Parts: sequence; structure tokens; C-alpha cells
Amino acid sequence: MPIAENIKSALASSSMIRRMFEEGLQLKKIHGNDNVFDFSLGNPDIDPPRTFHDLFVKLAQEDEKGSHGYMPNAGYPHVREALAKKVSREQNVKADGSHIVLSVGAAGGLNTVIKTICNPDDEVIVSRPYFMEYRAYTANHGAKLVEVDALDDFDLDIKAIDAALNEKTAAVIINSPNNPTGKIYSKEKLSSLASALTQHGKKTGRFVYLVSDEPYREIVYGHDVPPVLSCYSQSIVVYSYSKSLSLPGERIGYIAVSPEIFDKDDLVNGLIYSTRILGYVNAPALMQRIVGTLTEEKVDISVYQRRRDAFMKVLNDAGIEYADPQGAFYLFCKVPESEREAGDQADDKAFTDHLKKYLILGVPGSGFGKPMWVRFAYCVDEKIIKNSASAFKKAAESW
Amino acid sequence: MPIAENIKSALASSSMIRRMFEEGLQLKKIHGNDNVFDFSLGNPDIDPPRTFHDLFVKLAQEDEKGSHGYMPNAGYPHVREALAKKVSREQNVKADGSHIVLSVGAAGGLNTVIKTICNPDDEVIVSRPYFMEYRAYTANHGAKLVEVDALDDFDLDIKAIDAALNEKTAAVIINSPNNPTGKIYSKEKLSSLASALTQHGKKTGRFVYLVSDEPYREIVYGHDVPPVLSCYSQSIVVYSYSKSLSLPGERIGYIAVSPEIFDKDDLVNGLIYSTRILGYVNAPALMQRIVGTLTEEKVDISVYQRRRDAFMKVLNDAGIEYADPQGAFYLFCKVPESEREAGDQADDKAFTDHLKKYLILGVPGSGFGKPMWVRFAYCVDEKIIKNSASAFKKAAESW
Repeated sequence: MPIAENIKSALASSSMIRRMFEEGLQLKKIHGNDNVFDFSLGNPDIDPPRTFHDLFVKLAQEDEKGSHGYMPNAGYPHVREALAKKVSREQNVKADGSHIVLSVGAAGGLNTVIKTICNPDDEVIVSRPYFMEYRAYTANHGAKLVEVDALDDFDLDIKAIDAALNEKTAAVIINSPNNPTGKIYSKEKLSSLASALTQHGKKTGRFVYLVSDEPYREIVYGHDVPPVLSCYSQSIVVYSYSKSLSLPGERIGYIAVSPEIFDKDDLVNGLIYSTRILGYVNAPALMQRIVGTLTEEKVDISVYQRRRDAFMKVLNDAGIEYADPQGAFYLFCKVPESEREAGDQADDKAFTDHLKKYLILGVPGSGFGKPMWVRFAYCVDEKIIKNSASAFKKAAESW
Repeated sequence: MPIAENIKSALASSSMIRRMFEEGLQLKKIHGNDNVFDFSLGNPDIDPPRTFHDLFVKLAQEDEKGSHGYMPNAGYPHVREALAKKVSREQNVKADGSHIVLSVGAAGGLNTVIKTICNPDDEVIVSRPYFMEYRAYTANHGAKLVEVDALDDFDLDIKAIDAALNEKTAAVIINSPNNPTGKIYSKEKLSSLASALTQHGKKTGRFVYLVSDEPYREIVYGHDVPPVLSCYSQSIVVYSYSKSLSLPGERIGYIAVSPEIFDKDDLVNGLIYSTRILGYVNAPALMQRIVGTLTEEKVDISVYQRRRDAFMKVLNDAGIEYADPQGAFYLFCKVPESEREAGDQADDKAFTDHLKKYLILGVPGSGFGKPMWVRFAYCVDEKIIKNSASAFKKAAESW
């Protein structure tokens, strides 16, 4: 029994994705990097903005005494204040530094929130399809993920969420713009979710937290992401600079709680305590100072938009249907009707295997709880997207 | 029920330390920073070495494309290789990059290890007194901390550890040099621990991991820290650059497993998986690149040594006894015999309260599982240590 049983079984079930990743590497070795159309990974490849670079150099040259030391576990007070201004503006609330806790990215922030609010066997509701890590994040802290199917257009199904609420429900997690669908939830939709949660709270005495995972907030194409904090008093935003500043490897983000949230001191002190004992201790010091200054900056979103438009054209030409991509950098595609012979598999895994023959790599929707769909990430050069056109066409025709 | 019950009760019990911290702040406001002898916090205050600064500036100026992006969850392959060379030299083994996983400091590394190796209700043995966070780290993952008293000189009590081993034991955690005692475990002591663990493994079929928490490895005064990896095949080292490079706020460290460890692939894949799902995802990218280059560097230890020597003189003059400080930056002191009147409390909490009247701040040993002792950290200017002499004398005389 060298490792824990749950880790061992998780390794076994995640081997599919690892195998895919390894096959991708092999394909690139054989055919060359530029000849494999790898849309499997959501690894932002756009450079951080120039202002990031300038500040990075300035802080390195100054290298102020004590600037790599411990600070309070919640983060530098001046950074919390600066982020509170950003959050207040974006979320239409009056937050101050006491509503912000710096985190090790959104992944660290979500674990911190779940650890803080969930008793053993509490439930966390999520709209399916969803970012697959949520399952592990809830299991880490003894909570249970409850999956509720989205509507056909991948919008939230409020009735279904309402039906899933019970006395064990600690939170509903939403992710907008959504990975993998690109969906942005409208203000009206969020309001009806807030109504359902408020009614449930009044009836049962337990007000369910609305946890909004917003790493893609700035990655939008002609849409705004409506505020959650001003829509429902018991809401918590988790944010990451992985996408907006292209800093995924540096692990920096924050948690922001609604100024109207109940028992705010207990909650925030709990978040700070969880940050400490989960071993983050604090978000990385240098990056805290950087994001506390660059509150108005983001990467050049037009690059993603051009890629998205190019990719939509490729898919249109191949006759492959996809969900309306309002934000994030994914195209979530329907596995085409198959003309395969009887007995042949025609699901999302079979389709991604089929695509691989044409050197196209994507992730089966099953990994997001949505079989018969496939996710393509466009964190790759526009050239590669355009060059994939004939491969997609051939693959679709021969499916 | 706004937050989890276990977090709420943890907040209540940790309020003592918070109150002490807040009282310290108040004292400094009243009397001035330099007039309060604050030895409560282990926050390294020595500057990182000059080579750190130079490399920091160089990497900022280059700001290589993609250098803030995701890398494999285990860390950059070239950094894993570089650290494997450092570990091989220090631990007298032949490790390669596959034995190293970069971590968010030692706190992140320890959580990753415990998550990976512990089934629910498994036990982790620790020698008391110990770094109090171990309790939360084991509880995070459903495991149970089993405390075994150290010998009178704070060395490991092998017989007691042996007696605590059972079929539920997943690991023994050691911490050398030790926080709070400053003790370094000898080669002979580690060998007899290894023998006990090996015998237990042969008898029961379960080989207990020896997890060596080594953030203070370089902070030693005329002593070496004997290698653990070459002493016991089922051992895992957790390391942090918080002390050796004075980078505690940047959250960078690593996990190194013995090249002889059983089921190494499962274990390392499990560590990588846990790194991901616990929300660290990876250790901060920039700091990985820095520590992968500065493998030979450390802060100027002579500064700590001078402080230690000055502090020992202060305590000697005040007639306060302490454990032999072989490493780390703490003096662990016995609460002096009291001449207090009957009915007055004379324990470690009362003694730290008493010291506070003389503007001296320390941490009661109860917080480390060792009542009637007090910990002083000397991460403060030598001048403050020297200036505390008469305060210590008066406090000891009036106790």
C-alpha cells in the first residue's frame, strides 16, 4: 500500500488523458510541431502586456529589502486594497481590502473556499459540462459534487439547480465565461439563480454560497460578464491572472467576498486560516505586488478573437457544429452524425481518436461530463488554426 | 452555518496566538518598534544572497517568451535535474529528475506528501515538541497525528516511536534541525530509526515512510545534517528555500524521494497528481528557474550564528536554561523555577505574559506540545537581542 487508494484509482482513471498527451508528443516528434494541430491544452500563449515586463524589471532592480519575506497570510494590505477597488468597479459593490484574500491562482482559491465552507458530506452543485478539476477540489475536503445538466444552449438550468438544493448544499459553483462551452451567463439568468438561492435560504435557514470561478472574465468577444457579487449577497468570486495577464505558471489570483455576506469576519478569517493550513501560506509575494499595481491591464484579447474567428470558419467549412463561443478560448463541438458501419464506436472518444489520424488533437467532452462533444482550445498560433482546415474537412468527411 | 465546523473551532483555538500578535503590535505602537523585544515570529529577515538579486534582474530583463506559462505539474525538467544533483550530493544518493517534484514551499510539499500516502484514518507519527502546523496538515487529508515524546535532550525516542507503530501508520515525520528545539538528529539516531521502521515493515508488510522536513538544513552552527535518503530506502525529503535563500513569501521548495523507494512511479505520479488537485498546480515558475540555478547558494549564516551567541549570553546572564541550539533560529527555553505566591499560575503561558510586561515576546511551548517551555526566534537584529539583556534579567528576577 505505497500510496493512498483514492490517489491510486485517480491515477488509473486519468491515464486516458496522459496517454493522449503522450501520443500527442509522439505525433509531434514524427511530424514536427507545426504539422500537428494540437488544440488539447488551455495554456495561454499570448505574452503578458508590456507594462508587466516593465514593472517586473523595475521590481527586480529595486529588490526592496524584505520584499520576498512573509506578509500576512491574506496578502499585502496595500494589494488587498488595490484589488478591492478593481472588484468594486467590476462587481458593482463597495468592497475594501477586508473582502479580498490573495490566492495561489483560482485552483488554490477554490480549494481554500471549499475547505472553508464545507462540512463533511456537504454538497456542491455544478452545471454540467464543467471544468473537471471541480470534482477533485470538492473531494479533497470531504464534500460531494452534484452535477446538474445545463440547458441545450449550455445556459444554467435554474429549475434543475433549484431541485438539487437541499439542507446539505453548501455552494453552487458557476464558471462564466465557461470552460469548456464559452458560455457567459446573463444578468437575468444570474438574478433568477439568486432568487432561487434566496428562497431556499429563507425556507431552510441555510444560505447557499454562490461561488463564481472567473478566470476568463476578461477573455470575451463583444460581451460583458455580469457582476455576481452585487446580484446575490452570499456570493464569492474566485479570480486568476493566468489568462488576463498570461501568468498561469506564477500561480496568482484572489478570492473576493460580497460586502453583504453573512458572518463576513468568520468567513474571511476562515479563508485566511485555510490558505495557511492548506500549505499555500500566502500567494507568491512578487506576483502579489505586480497584480496590485497592474489592476487595469490585460493581454491583447484581439489575438484570441482573431483565432476564434479563424477557427469558427474552419469548423463551418468542415460542417462541424459548435456552441456559441462568447468568451474563454475554447470551441465546444458536437461530434458529427456518423456514417460509420454498424458496430463501430461513434462517441466523443472515438471521434478524437479519428481526428488524431489527421493530426488533430482535442479533448473528449466526457472529460467535462458531456459525451458526444469535443473541446478544442485555441491557445495556439493562428497559422496552425488556418492550416488545420483541410485536415478538419477530411476528418469530417471520412467520419 | 456560514463556515465549516472544524474551521470555526480552529479559529477559536488559534485566537490565543492572534491575541498575542495583536498585543505585540499594540506594544510596538506605544513603545516604538525598537523598544519591543519581539522574538515571536520565525520570519527570516536576512537578505537573499547577491547572486539571487543578479539572477532576478537578469531573468526580468530577458523575460523569455512563455516563461510565465504552465510547465509540467512536477516542475521544469531542467530544474528537476539540477535539484536532483543537489539532493544526490547532500543525501549521498544517485537521484535524477524523476525523483524530484517542485512544491509551493515545504508547507505545500508536506500537504502533497500526506495527501498522496495517507488513507483515511492512517496515522502519522511525530516527535513532540513539533511544528504545530503538522496537526492541521494531517487533518486536512483525513489522517491522524500521533505525538510521541522526545527524550529529555529533545532527541528522538526510538523505543517510543517503535511502540507507536501499527498497521495504520503511514509515516513518521522528522524535522531536523528542529523547530522549536534547534536539535539535529545524528547519523546513529537516524540509523536506529531506520532499523525500527525496516523491522516493522518486514513484520507487517507495510513499510512506513520517513518524511524529513528540512527547511533549516543549511541553518546550522558547526554541525552537519546527516542524510536521510541514503539512510532509509522509504524516505522522502521535503525542502524549502524560505530559510536558505530567505524567500518565504515566494513559496518555493521541493519534494525528493529516495531512489530506492518502493513503487517509485506510483508514488511520484501520485505526488504530481496531488500537487495538481490540491490547487498548487505547480510551484511558481520564476522561482523554479531561480532555485534551479542557485543550487550552491545560501544566505550568510554567520549573521544567525552571531545572534544566537548573543542571545545565549543574554539568557545565561538572566539564568534562563535552554536546549542546545545546534541549528534553525530558535532558542527553546525552560520556564524558570518560580518564586510566585501560591495560587499564581507558573506555566509557560503565565511566563510569556510575565515577559510581556518587560516588552519581551515569545511563544509558549504548549503551542508545540511542550508546556513549561518557551520559544524565542532570533530573526531580529542583533542590537535588539543585546538590548533585551536587562529586560530578561529583570523579568527572571521578578518571576
